Amino acid sequence: MEPIKSLVGAEFPLFAFSHCRDVVAAVSRAGGFGVLGGSSFTPESLERELKWIDEHVNGMPYGIDILVPEHQSFGPATDMASLAAQVPKEHIDFAVGLLRKHGITVQPEDVVDKLPPATLPEVGEALMDVAFRHPIRLIVNALGIAPPSMIERARRHGIPVGALVGAKEHAVRQVKAGVDLLIAQGGEAGGHCGEVSTLVLVPEVLRAIKPIRDVPVLAAGGIMNGAQMAGCMAMGAAGAWTGSVWLATAEAETSETFKQKMISANSRDTIRSKSRTGKPSRQLKSSWHDAWDGPDSPGALPMPIMAMISIPTFARIDKAADSGNAAAKELVSYWVGQGVGLIDAVRPAAAVVREFQQEFADAVERLAATIES
Amino acid sequence: MEPIKSLVGAEFPLFAFSHCRDVVAAVSRAGGFGVLGGSSFTPESLERELKWIDEHVNGMPYGIDILVPEHQSFGPATDMASLAAQVPKEHIDFAVGLLRKHGITVQPEDVVDKLPPATLPEVGEALMDVAFRHPIRLIVNALGIAPPSMIERARRHGIPVGALVGAKEHAVRQVKAGVDLLIAQGGEAGGHCGEVSTLVLVPEVLRAIKPIRDVPVLAAGGIMNGAQMAGCMAMGAAGAWTGSVWLATAEAETSETFKQKMISANSRDTIRSKSRTGKPSRQLKSSWHDAWDGPDSPGALPMPIMAMISIPTFARIDKAADSGNAAAKELVSYWVGQGVGLIDAVRPAAAVVREFQQEFADAVERLAATIES
Repeated sequence: MEPIKSLVGAEFPLFAFSHCRDVVAAVSRAGGFGVLGGSSFTPESLERELKWIDEHVNGMPYGIDILVPEHQSFGPATDMASLAAQVPKEHIDFAVGLLRKHGITVQPEDVVDKLPPATLPEVGEALMDVAFRHPIRLIVNALGIAPPSMIERARRHGIPVGALVGAKEHAVRQVKAGVDLLIAQGGEAGGHCGEVSTLVLVPEVLRAIKPIRDVPVLAAGGIMNGAQMAGCMAMGAAGAWTGSVWLATAEAETSETFKQKMISANSRDTIRSKSRTGKPSRQLKSSWHDAWDGPDSPGALPMPIMAMISIPTFARIDKAADSGNAAAKELVSYWVGQGVGLIDAVRPAAAVVREFQQEFADAVERLAATIES
Repeated sequence: MEPIKSLVGAEFPLFAFSHCRDVVAAVSRAGGFGVLGGSSFTPESLERELKWIDEHVNGMPYGIDILVPEHQSFGPATDMASLAAQVPKEHIDFAVGLLRKHGITVQPEDVVDKLPPATLPEVGEALMDVAFRHPIRLIVNALGIAPPSMIERARRHGIPVGALVGAKEHAVRQVKAGVDLLIAQGGEAGGHCGEVSTLVLVPEVLRAIKPIRDVPVLAAGGIMNGAQMAGCMAMGAAGAWTGSVWLATAEAETSETFKQKMISANSRDTIRSKSRTGKPSRQLKSSWHDAWDGPDSPGALPMPIMAMISIPTFARIDKAADSGNAAAKELVSYWVGQGVGLIDAVRPAAAVVREFQQEFADAVERLAATIES
C-alpha cells in the first residue's frame, strides 16, 4: 500500500471515480481515495462541488479528473452554434422517432443541446484554476496525453498527475511526458476503453515502462470487489481504479431505473458502441443500441457532435423511465463495465469500501494459504 | 494447491493445453499438468501420441482434451463428400486468389480438403475408447456441454471431467450436467472464446455455481506468467489453464515464422474472427483477416465448412513462409490470445514452468507484503 500512501495519502489504494460528490467524500472518509469526475462542470459548479467535498471529507485526501485536450480538436474559432449546425436533420429525426416509439413525445429542438463547457479546451484551464485552489491530492487527465500545462501547473502545486491508458504504447508516451501515476484500463471497463483486457494490460504496461521510470500503475476495468483488487496487486499493480461499482451506490447520481437494470444485468449485457459519444465506449446494452447500431440507423456522429444529441435525449429518457414509462425503460443506458454482472444490490458507498477491505484481506490470506498447505 | 492436487495429482495447478506431446510431457514432468489437445487426431494417431507420452512423462499426471459434440450438428448421414460439395466456388476462388497474391501458386483443388476426423461425432467415442486405455487423470470436453456418454464413461474409469465455459450460464449448465472441473475462459483467450474478460468471468462463475456445487474453477484467457496465475488464485480460482504461452516454446508445433511473429506482436495484434473456423475465435491478426473480413470477401463459411478451406490453405502458407517467401509470411496466423503481447522469447517448456513457479512465489510474497507494511 506504501507507494500510493506516499503519493496521494490514502491508506487503502482503492480509487473511486465518480461524478457524484457524495461518493467521492464517502470513499475518502472510509479510507479509500475518491476522484471527482469534473468534466461536465462549469468552473462555477466545480467550485461549488469542491467546496462541498472539502466540508465533508474530514480532511481525508481526494482527487479530481478533468478533460484537458492535448490538441484543440475543433479549432479556436469553434463555437456552440456552429457545432449545433453540424447535427444533420436525419439524425435529429431518427432520435425523435426513436423516443416517440418508446412513448416519449419530443420535438426536434428537444433532442439537440449544446455541449457541457468542459468539452472546449479553454474551459479545461479554467477548471484547473478552480481545482488548484482546493486541497486536491491528485489530478487526472481523462483522455489522451496529459498536456504540458497540466503537468507544469501540478508540479508548481506539488500535486501528482495521473493518466488513463489502454495500450502499452500510450503508457510509454505518458511516462515520458512526466505523469506520476498510470491507470491501465482494460477493455472490460465502462466508458471509453480499448480492447486489451485488464489481466493482460497491467503486466504489459508494467513491463513497458520499467526501463523508463518506476511509475505506480493502478489496474482498472472490471474491478468490482476486493478479491479482484488483490489479484491485480499480486500482478504488480499499486492499487485499483474503479468506476462502475459506485454507480450502484445509494449516493450515486444514476437513475433509479438504471440502478435496477444494473442489478438484473450479467456481464454480457454491455456493448462497446460509438452511439453515445462518437467514440467506442462501453455501456449497458439497451434498445438505444439496437436502434443506433442497427440497419436503419443513420450511424453515429463523430465526437463531440454525437453528445449534442445523446445528452439531452438521455436526460428525457431517464426522466420518462423514472416516472414509470415502461417503454422508456427499454432505452435506459449509461456507461458501465462488464463488471456490472457482479452487482447484486445497491449499497452505501462506505459499505462498499469496507467490503473491498474485507475481501482484500481474505484474498491475501487465500493466496498465502496456497503455498503454506 | 490442494483441490487440484487431490483432483488430478498435479503439485502446481498450472494446466498446459497443447497439441504437442512434447509440451504435455515436459510440463507434467516439471510439476504442472499437461493436457493434450486431441481433437485433430484419428484414434490410431491418438494411440501413438498417448503411448509416447506414457513413455516420457515419468509417471507424472496428464490429461486429454477432445471434442465430443453434445448434438450431432450435421446429421448422421453426412459424409465428407457431401460436406465438400457445400464449399462454394466463390470461396475457393477467393482463397486461391489470396494465396497467389502472396506468392503461393495453388490450384482450386489444393485449397479444399476433408476435415480432421474428430469433427464427426462417432469419432469422439472412438477417441474416448483410446483415451481411457491410458493413465489419463483428466478428460476435458473442448466445446459445449460435456455429453452424458463422456461423463458416464469417465465416472466408470474414476477420471474427472473438465469443461470450458465463457459465460456464467454455461457454467451453471455444466455443473448441473455433472462436470468436476470448470475452466472459465475469458474473451482475451486464443481460439474460440466469448466476450467477457477473465477478470470478470472468474468471480462471476464462482458466484453462480456456489449454490449448486463446489466445483474447482480454473482461470483461463490471457495468463502467460505466474504473477497473473497468482492474481487469479487470489480471486478464488483453483489454478490456471494456459494455451498461448506454450506456442512459443522450443517444443511447440508452431511454425518458425509464427514463433517470430509472436515475439514481435503486442496485445492489440489479435483479432476475434470467424474467418478460420466459421465461429468467432481469437487469432494473430494477419493479411488473412484483412482479406476475409474485408469488403471484397465472400464472407466466412459456417463451421465446420470453413475449416475445409482454412486447414489445407494454412498448411501451404506456413510451408511457403518457412521456406523464406516474404509475401507468404504476411498471411501467417494461428490461434493465440491477447497475452501474445507478453511473449518475448522462445524457451523450453520446462523453463516456462519453472518461471511460473518463481513468479507465483514472488507474487504471493508481494501481495502479503502489502498488508504487512
